[in-house]
Amino acid sequence: MRTIIINVTVVTMNDQREIHDPGFVMFENDIITAVGDMKDLPDKAGLLHTVTVDGRNGILMPGMVNLHTHMGMVPFRGLGDDCKDRLRVFLLPMEQKTMDEELVYLSTRYGAGEMLLGGVTTALDMYYFEEEAAKAMDEMGMRGITGQTVMDEGACDFAHPREALAYGENLIKKYRSHPRISACIAPHGTNTCGEDLLLEAYRMDSLYKVPFPLHMAEMDYEMDYFRKEYGMTPVRYLDSLHVLGEETLAAHCIHMTEEDLLLFKEKGARVAHCIGSNTKAAKGVAPVSSMLRLAIPVGLGTDGPASGNTLDIFTQMKLCANFHKNETRDRSAFPAETIVAMATIQGAKAMGLHDLTGSLEPGKQADMVLVETHSPNMFPVYNPYSALVYSANPSNVEEVYVAGECLVKGKKLVKSDMDEIRKALSEKMKKTDFGIYMAKMGNIY
Amino acid sequence: MRTIIINVTVVTMNDQREIHDPGFVMFENDIITAVGDMKDLPDKAGLLHTVTVDGRNGILMPGMVNLHTHMGMVPFRGLGDDCKDRLRVFLLPMEQKTMDEELVYLSTRYGAGEMLLGGVTTALDMYYFEEEAAKAMDEMGMRGITGQTVMDEGACDFAHPREALAYGENLIKKYRSHPRISACIAPHGTNTCGEDLLLEAYRMDSLYKVPFPLHMAEMDYEMDYFRKEYGMTPVRYLDSLHVLGEETLAAHCIHMTEEDLLLFKEKGARVAHCIGSNTKAAKGVAPVSSMLRLAIPVGLGTDGPASGNTLDIFTQMKLCANFHKNETRDRSAFPAETIVAMATIQGAKAMGLHDLTGSLEPGKQADMVLVETHSPNMFPVYNPYSALVYSANPSNVEEVYVAGECLVKGKKLVKSDMDEIRKALSEKMKKTDFGIYMAKMGNIY
Ligand SMILES: [Zn+2]
Ligand SMILES: [Zn+2]
Repeated sequence: MRTIIINVTVVTMNDQREIHDPGFVMFENDIITAVGDMKDLPDKAGLLHTVTVDGRNGILMPGMVNLHTHMGMVPFRGLGDDCKDRLRVFLLPMEQKTMDEELVYLSTRYGAGEMLLGGVTTALDMYYFEEEAAKAMDEMGMRGITGQTVMDEGACDFAHPREALAYGENLIKKYRSHPRISACIAPHGTNTCGEDLLLEAYRMDSLYKVPFPLHMAEMDYEMDYFRKEYGMTPVRYLDSLHVLGEETLAAHCIHMTEEDLLLFKEKGARVAHCIGSNTKAAKGVAPVSSMLRLAIPVGLGTDGPASGNTLDIFTQMKLCANFHKNETRDRSAFPAETIVAMATIQGAKAMGLHDLTGSLEPGKQADMVLVETHSPNMFPVYNPYSALVYSANPSNVEEVYVAGECLVKGKKLVKSDMDEIRKALSEKMKKTDFGIYMAKMGNIY
Repeated sequence: MRTIIINVTVVTMNDQREIHDPGFVMFENDIITAVGDMKDLPDKAGLLHTVTVDGRNGILMPGMVNLHTHMGMVPFRGLGDDCKDRLRVFLLPMEQKTMDEELVYLSTRYGAGEMLLGGVTTALDMYYFEEEAAKAMDEMGMRGITGQTVMDEGACDFAHPREALAYGENLIKKYRSHPRISACIAPHGTNTCGEDLLLEAYRMDSLYKVPFPLHMAEMDYEMDYFRKEYGMTPVRYLDSLHVLGEETLAAHCIHMTEEDLLLFKEKGARVAHCIGSNTKAAKGVAPVSSMLRLAIPVGLGTDGPASGNTLDIFTQMKLCANFHKNETRDRSAFPAETIVAMATIQGAKAMGLHDLTGSLEPGKQADMVLVETHSPNMFPVYNPYSALVYSANPSNVEEVYVAGECLVKGKKLVKSDMDEIRKALSEKMKKTDFGIYMAKMGNIY
């Protein structure tokens, strides 16, 4: 099937950062076939058997990339947000007591639906029972990589990391030739995984040429631990194990020395910047201006809904712009174009998916978001980058396509019903011991 | 007319910070008559001749207060966002060339509509031709104070500040007994108004018992100027003129010494904190944790759409939480309840309107916002403050009441049509020299 979207401001995010205003994008099945100005629209003969979609002066941008999230954690959104020791008081015990395969599946369906409605077409997920996450993301039509978490301590899915590794390798193999979904092994972090586990995970991810994602340089106690135990930073530690390479996709990277950054550059490692999660948790602002200066690929991540609450990239773009402008005391730093690049093509690069997605160019997959400009917050538009970063919010997402399939139309999911997805998740939460545990914790107002 | 809203989580923001979950709020004409738990709902007899609104498990909160904005500047939203010298390159010349009474009127209608749709029921506006702003806000049904800007240099409305003062005094008198709108004189800033003008504006605002709003301690060059010229900070300078008092409502206050803060406390002066505008402009983060420690009333402001782009307070709440948690390196600092207080009752206190609005209590005006919890980003809700600050966005605003009048229902304006308002503003912009000036500035991508 051939489709053309007309009357839009096309933000291509190609290397020349071309904008077609007004412009069109044409795609056949899953592949973009033409991008251009409206004045260069193919003639009638060229549009035979083509479905025409009127974008009504919206902004057509590449589908956004969420580089770090935990979709299985929707049930924990908003739990103990302002609690100092929230991880140990709320999250870990609740996770241990309530998480099972069905909950991961239902929560990931929810998370994927929420992301699609907010314009995220590609996500890197890291959680437990990731076969369920892969199934849910696939059913929802998203693109993404599901990272099976491994850690030395047992987790809610497997008592021993060896089991989690085997499960993860199976998952990788199962999705190896899937057009949209792939899988990888995701070590939980630098201080929750010992040397052996890190080495084995890296070996496996490298073997299958998939990302090696992990949490890194996020916590003060993590930095202290490495200083005391090894006399080095987590980055140097990873490098000393030879697990710092192009596959390495480190979430957070808040505490980075200049030497760490140079090592990242040298080894081709990538960063998932989670500004919302990091600053809500009062952990500090990662040195992204230095990363960009060194051309380290940096994309944006929401982190899980229990950390960052929202799963859309618009919220992250706004926070990213304001935090880094303010850090550098330069209002012209981190211009909107740079932020949109982090949300799209840079994120795709960091996931190794830039041949498929992240920009609107002939030959790439038709992963696209139509952002309407009819809502009150979207007028006037002088510069589409600026409108996307400073004005837009997820409610402005009108249509979403992944691999040419229309997944959101008129701000609603096309293939699935968000109310049903919510009902199923909510009922499952009631069936688990959620209620009991919540009651034990007392009034959380 | 008597109305009761049932099946809601009532976030009262009264002194005890009571929450009724599930609860109800009853109001008669413009006045709240009862607030309570659903189990204490009046019996049938007590509900005779009462319209019942089912809040469908939404969160009912006090209408939000936008403590500092310039609604006349909607036409300039997004103009030169990332430009270092944006004020001089874009804003000032455009304002001088294009701004007239009709544009202020149409832009303020637009801004008021946008704010209402985002849950803002009360605003303090500062701009030119403020009689037009007052008329527009009144027609839209909002509550607010319109501050006629005065400055030594001529402005787009009056060539001489004496004319602006006279116009402002007339406006104050005209709206003196209006139930929702009042007016004041708003000196532009500490370094754009000389001593005489500051003294005269303060005398007038004090005489009529209305706020004395101005920009203060915002710019590095402002601080340098006062250091060099007077050897003191802008706060001490205002105090030396005896224009620092309970009427003083200073926007920004980024650069405050401990002595400045103590002076604010001693004199009862108030702060409009505009975190979004300040950080997007890379100007720094105001010392709000010290302000709160000293119990200085601090509310939230969006600043104008040319500075902060969005006119809703949800965006400011999120930025406020994340910036101040991160500044203090304490995730439990600035808990969601504190942020919601700044957005509501604290803002009302700063405007001197806390007897009327800012909390849901019997005897107060029925200024209320129903935030739906059906959208994907609003599930689950463990704590309503947390959901409002970390999860919600303006698109979750379902219903809005000001003085008991329903202004937003089903996420749409009730009394006016946003599309028509936009069309009128857009046509006016085309009629002015906007197009010509935009073209002269070249491609702004
Ligand atoms: Zn994470
Ligand atoms: Zn201002």
